[in-house]
Amino acid sequence: MAAIETGTILVGQKPVMNYVLAAVIQFNQGAQRVIFKARGRSISKAVDAAEIVRSRFLPGQVDITSVKIGSEKVGEPGKERVVSTIEIVLEKKE
Amino acid sequence: MAAIETGTILVGQKPVMNYVLAAVIQFNQGAQRVIFKARGRSISKAVDAAEIVRSRFLPGQVDITSVKIGSEKVGEPGKERVVSTIEIVLEKKE
Repeated sequence: MAAIETGTILVGQKPVMNYVLAAVIQFNQGAQRVIFKARGRSISKAVDAAEIVRSRFLPGQVDITSVKIGSEKVGEPGKERVVSTIEIVLEKKE
Repeated sequence: MAAIETGTILVGQKPVMNYVLAAVIQFNQGAQRVIFKARGRSISKAVDAAEIVRSRFLPGQVDITSVKIGSEKVGEPGKERVVSTIEIVLEKKE
């Protein structure tokens, strides 16, 4: 069984197009699957990036196969706070 | 077969706790399923609301059974723009 090439992109403070292009480049370099991960305020941007890749840059070529949300503790012990997280999996169609 | 009571909550500009409490009230009034819907910048808030309901207000009682993302055209004809959307389904455990 061949390993499935997976790229992971952490979505943060940069403009959304940076993350879109990072994903497109990974797919063009042979990745079968690209995962966008984000926390807190960046969650909306991760959804935007995934939708732009799927519908504008690689239409008909990739599917969003999984969207998961969760929570994570961040910060120093004693000053921890909980932030929401998202993981969006885009996969190349066969 | 009994109809499954479903509540829908549109997440927008209000503080996140408004949406959390709306969901908790719907579950307490007998809803089996509550759906958070949001667009654009409010997507992060919808994820926060779902996570707060699941982990803080009704821990062990509800599951996030589905998360879907998509795109929608909004605005007047000629001035349309595309916004991302999210739908998060919370369901009561049996």
